[in-house]
Amino acid sequence: MAKRFSAETYVEGILARDRVMLSRAITLIESKLPSDHDLAQQVINAVLPHAGGSVRIGITGVPGVGKSTFIESFGNYLIQEQGKKLAVLAIDPTSQRTGGSILGDKTRMELLSINPQAFIRPSPAGKSLGGVTRSTRETIILCEAAGFDAIVVETVGVGQSETAVHAMVDFFLLLMLAGAGDELQGIKRGIMEMADAIAITKADGANITKAKAARAEYQSALHLYPMSHSGWLPKVSVCSALEQTGLDTIWQTIAEYLQLTQQNGYFDKKRRNQNLQWMYEAIRQGLEENFYAHQKVKEQLPGIAEQVKEGKKSAFAAAAELLRLV
Amino acid sequence: MAKRFSAETYVEGILARDRVMLSRAITLIESKLPSDHDLAQQVINAVLPHAGGSVRIGITGVPGVGKSTFIESFGNYLIQEQGKKLAVLAIDPTSQRTGGSILGDKTRMELLSINPQAFIRPSPAGKSLGGVTRSTRETIILCEAAGFDAIVVETVGVGQSETAVHAMVDFFLLLMLAGAGDELQGIKRGIMEMADAIAITKADGANITKAKAARAEYQSALHLYPMSHSGWLPKVSVCSALEQTGLDTIWQTIAEYLQLTQQNGYFDKKRRNQNLQWMYEAIRQGLEENFYAHQKVKEQLPGIAEQVKEGKKSAFAAAAELLRLV
Repeated sequence: MAKRFSAETYVEGILARDRVMLSRAITLIESKLPSDHDLAQQVINAVLPHAGGSVRIGITGVPGVGKSTFIESFGNYLIQEQGKKLAVLAIDPTSQRTGGSILGDKTRMELLSINPQAFIRPSPAGKSLGGVTRSTRETIILCEAAGFDAIVVETVGVGQSETAVHAMVDFFLLLMLAGAGDELQGIKRGIMEMADAIAITKADGANITKAKAARAEYQSALHLYPMSHSGWLPKVSVCSALEQTGLDTIWQTIAEYLQLTQQNGYFDKKRRNQNLQWMYEAIRQGLEENFYAHQKVKEQLPGIAEQVKEGKKSAFAAAAELLRLV
Repeated sequence: MAKRFSAETYVEGILARDRVMLSRAITLIESKLPSDHDLAQQVINAVLPHAGGSVRIGITGVPGVGKSTFIESFGNYLIQEQGKKLAVLAIDPTSQRTGGSILGDKTRMELLSINPQAFIRPSPAGKSLGGVTRSTRETIILCEAAGFDAIVVETVGVGQSETAVHAMVDFFLLLMLAGAGDELQGIKRGIMEMADAIAITKADGANITKAKAARAEYQSALHLYPMSHSGWLPKVSVCSALEQTGLDTIWQTIAEYLQLTQQNGYFDKKRRNQNLQWMYEAIRQGLEENFYAHQKVKEQLPGIAEQVKEGKKSAFAAAAELLRLV
C-alpha cells in the first residue's frame, strides 16, 4: 500500500500550494482501496471552502485535431499573458484499456510540463468512466484549493466522456479541423451542441483560407441551434498553435462568456446545479453498483437480458424480476 | 376500482383486434394500483410474441408547428395510400399538470379519430415522465399485437420526452417551421441531432419559397453533423397538411430508411438495444424509487442537498452519507 498521511497533512499541504502533497492527495482520491475512501472524503470536505475560484474549461476534439499542441500553446498563453495558474486534467476512460493515457506522455506538452505555474495530471488509470469522472471532479476541487485558477479538462471527442466533462466545467470548447467531412465522423452526435465555442485549429500556412471558410460555415450552422439558457451564442474562431495566433481571441471569448453569465446569474446557477447533479449521479452509481454486485443478480442477469434482447420477455417484467432478487 | 378481466381475456381480445379490449388493456397497464401490475405484466408477456411488426415513428416539434394537423394528414395518407393500420400515441408529461393532454382533444384529429383503421390514445395522465414513457412503450407492444403496423408516437419538442421517444422508435421525424429564428428557441438542444428527417410544415401559399429556402438551409446544416451509426444521412423535405403535399416524400424517406437499416442490420440491432436499454432503465427507476421512498432518506435529503448546492459538502460525500441510511 502506498504511503498515507493524516487528513490534516494533506489539507495543509494543499492549502500551502505544495505540489507534491497535491499529487499525493489526488493519488489518494483515485485509490480504489475502500480504506482510502473515508480519508479522501475528509480531505475533500476540508478543502471545499477554498475551492471554486477558478474558471473550469472543458476541451474536446477528435484525435488528430491537435489537442495537446493546442493546450500547450493556450496554456502557456493563459500563464504568460493572463497571469493564470493552470491545472490540466484529463478524462480518458480508454486509457484503462491501452494502459496509457492521453496525457501520460508528458513530452507532448514540453513547455507546460516544466512550467512552475502549470500542473499536469494524466487521466487516472484502471477506472470506469464513472470512476474517472468522479476522480477528475474531485481533483478539480483539490487543484482549486491549491491555488490553480484555470482548470482545463481535456477529453477525446469520441464518446460519452464529453457529457461528463460538460457537466463539470463552466465553458466547453470544441476543437475542429477545417475541411470538415471525414474529420467530423469521429465527433459523436450531440457534442457540437454542447460547445460554448468552436476553435478551428491548424489555421496556418495553406490552411488559413480553408479554416476561415469553415469558421463561417460553423458560425452559420450554430445560428440554427436554439439559444442556450445562458443567453450565450456560441462563437467560432480560428487559431494556430504553431504560429501562436487566435489564442487571445479564444480567451477573449471565454472572458466574455464569464462576464455575461456571472452578470445574469447563470454561472452560479450552473455550478450549483452541477453540484446537485453530481450528488444524484453518485447516488445512482452507488445504488447500481450495489445492485449489480449482488450474487443472485450476477447469476440471473445474463439469461434474462438475452430474453429481453430477443423480445421474449418485456423489459419491465425483466427488471421487476431482477429487482425482486435483492 | 375499474373493472378487470383475466389475463386470458385481455390477450384474446387484443389478438382478435378488439379495440375495446385493447383500450381496456392499456388502461390496465397505465394503472398505478400495485394490484394491477402483475396482471399487466402477464398480459404484456403473453402478447409479446405477436408484437414488433410495425414501423415505430416518433414525431416532435414545438407547439404551433402544426403537429396535430400533420399527424391527421399523414395518418390518413398512411392508411389510404399505404394500407397501414395506424396507432397514434402521445408522450406528454405536462398533461399531468394541466389535467389535459395533447391528444385529449380528439376533435383536433377529426378524420383519424373516426377512421376504423386508426387508433388514437392520449398521453396517460397523472404520471411522471418515467411513468408516461413506460406506459407508452408497453402500449406500443399491445397495439402491435392488435395488428397496428404503423405506430406514431407524438411528443412536444420542448423537453426530455424526446429522448424517451427517440429510445422507443425506429424513425424520428422533427417538424419545423420555415422562418427559423424565434421558432427554434423552443426546440431543446440536441433534438435536431436526433432527427432522421426534418419536415418543414405549412409549405403552402406564400410560405412555399420560405419553406424551400429553409429546407436547403437545414439540409446543408445536417451535412455538418457526423453520420449516424445507421449509415443514414437525415433528409429534409417540405410539406403542407392543408394542401396534402409532401406526405408521399416523407413516407418515401421513411421507407428508404427502413430498407437501408433492415439491410445493414441496424434496424434489428437498434430494437434489441432499445429492449435492453429499457430493462436497465427500469432497473434504475426501481432502485431510485425504492431509495427515495425510504423514510430516512426523505428526512435528510433536503438538508444535505442544500449543503451540496452551496458547496459546503462534496457531492460524493453527500451521496455516501445518504446511501448509508438505507
